[in-house]
Amino acid sequence: MSHLPLIEARIAEWAKELPQGNLYAPMAYLMGLPAKRVRPLLVLMACELFGGRAEDALDEALGIELFHNFTLMHDDIMDQAPLRRGQPTVHMKWDVNTAILSGDAMLVKAYQLMGKHPQVAAIFSEHALAVCEGQQLDMEYEQRGTVSVDEYRAMIRLKTAVLLSCALQVGATVAGASKQDAQRLGAFGEHLGLAFQLRDDLLDAFGDPAATGKQQGGDLRAGKKTFLLIRGLELGGAAGRDELRKELAKPAELRDVQRMLETLEVLGVRAEAERAVGTEERRALQALDGSAVEQERKQPLRQLAAQLMARNR
Amino acid sequence: MSHLPLIEARIAEWAKELPQGNLYAPMAYLMGLPAKRVRPLLVLMACELFGGRAEDALDEALGIELFHNFTLMHDDIMDQAPLRRGQPTVHMKWDVNTAILSGDAMLVKAYQLMGKHPQVAAIFSEHALAVCEGQQLDMEYEQRGTVSVDEYRAMIRLKTAVLLSCALQVGATVAGASKQDAQRLGAFGEHLGLAFQLRDDLLDAFGDPAATGKQQGGDLRAGKKTFLLIRGLELGGAAGRDELRKELAKPAELRDVQRMLETLEVLGVRAEAERAVGTEERRALQALDGSAVEQERKQPLRQLAAQLMARNR
Repeated sequence: MSHLPLIEARIAEWAKELPQGNLYAPMAYLMGLPAKRVRPLLVLMACELFGGRAEDALDEALGIELFHNFTLMHDDIMDQAPLRRGQPTVHMKWDVNTAILSGDAMLVKAYQLMGKHPQVAAIFSEHALAVCEGQQLDMEYEQRGTVSVDEYRAMIRLKTAVLLSCALQVGATVAGASKQDAQRLGAFGEHLGLAFQLRDDLLDAFGDPAATGKQQGGDLRAGKKTFLLIRGLELGGAAGRDELRKELAKPAELRDVQRMLETLEVLGVRAEAERAVGTEERRALQALDGSAVEQERKQPLRQLAAQLMARNR
Repeated sequence: MSHLPLIEARIAEWAKELPQGNLYAPMAYLMGLPAKRVRPLLVLMACELFGGRAEDALDEALGIELFHNFTLMHDDIMDQAPLRRGQPTVHMKWDVNTAILSGDAMLVKAYQLMGKHPQVAAIFSEHALAVCEGQQLDMEYEQRGTVSVDEYRAMIRLKTAVLLSCALQVGATVAGASKQDAQRLGAFGEHLGLAFQLRDDLLDAFGDPAATGKQQGGDLRAGKKTFLLIRGLELGGAAGRDELRKELAKPAELRDVQRMLETLEVLGVRAEAERAVGTEERRALQALDGSAVEQERKQPLRQLAAQLMARNR
């Protein structure tokens, strides 16, 4: 079985074995929504890269995906998000208390799967804390007037990139890779994750709504401090242009998103973001090239990276 | 150093090493409030019971106390509780989002301490899930019209008793006890935990406010479904007495708590609860007697149990 069907089958089997009741039903619901499964794929590929079998790391792959969905369940409460993957979020479909508690139990379930190898559990905990730190920064930045591009980058590194790195290190460790080799592969994941998030910011603003399934410019309308808006405000201020600031001063529903998008183009922010994605992608591939494994074994990871880079949704 | 100072010193040292920021400050705050530290004490005593040194299980003792405080942080959000140990709860002192996220990170920190022995992590996860199941039942029962005494008992077993059992099993396992011996000692903790919670219900209603630091009958005023109220409604209904039902029909601030207390006395509910506490205490001591260790080694655990049984707050 190729990787994705293997992961989907493991998730389906896991969901079937859950006990009845409102503690577990939200987990099955969220895990059952269609998703790219990037993190578990990275676990399996990293395991194979270092000579393991994908099946050997399937529990850990499921554990990482559970952890990722746990963070979504709790982040959606904090962000008061009504939709996730086009469907009602858990705290909307059930209620906030259920989403808190089911998320907690989901984190425990994730740990049950990460506990077979003590080194894996240690890597997982270290990165799980970093993800929490990233969410903390994200919330703080939403409250703050100004955030620098460096701060934003540090935040998305913690909130997003670090978990891709974790997935790769976990897979490598299951296969018996040394700590150093695992970390080198982790660097590939970290740069890939930064590229992934910056690409997300770009797709939200300039992507095709028919492909992304989202309203174009949703982040801009919400005044969300992404790379684009942060950099746009910086450059706009320096150039004496205040279109973005003026739009942000309006209530969200009155903002002219098309005007904001044009401003970002004119200021060169879109091009700068595209370049930043390219830089991170290059760094990712360099880190992969530097891993101490025969080059031909790296083909599946290169291919996955290429898919993520070329994606339009 | 005797056990309690050892635990307090470990907690203080842990708190001092936490990074700055709003992710970690709530953990240090909650862990710093004066508490009985029953669970970590049980970890250390169980470790010594099976021939280990208390110091060997200090990380796990801290881990269990962290987990306990994580559940308090999240339960207080769910219960909208303003006070914990006489001080503002985390979600009141900071905000709900901070309490969700800091709690999540606290669970991860707990796992970092439980991960030295894979069997310990497995025992911990199994019981952590049970605690979540108990909180889930507690919330469901608050929404439901009637709850039976058996259901209440099953709920407090999961929500409270199971973690005392876990603490003992963890300590025993660190000392190298067999799974069977650890589980036998766990049974002591489970009965002790049931007695502990039933005693709590009694103290809330009939305790001396000067000692408990709580308003007398706070649970009754709030209409909280404790053993006393559940059994009182059952027996009252059977005896054709409706004082409790009438008081519950009023808004909380108009309820006559003294009248509710008298009714519980007259119906014999107070006496029944005292007997139930006694039964669980006896079962606890029987389980301890049956543990495969020389009797004199059990003295510290017997003494702790006696203290908990005689407590007035």
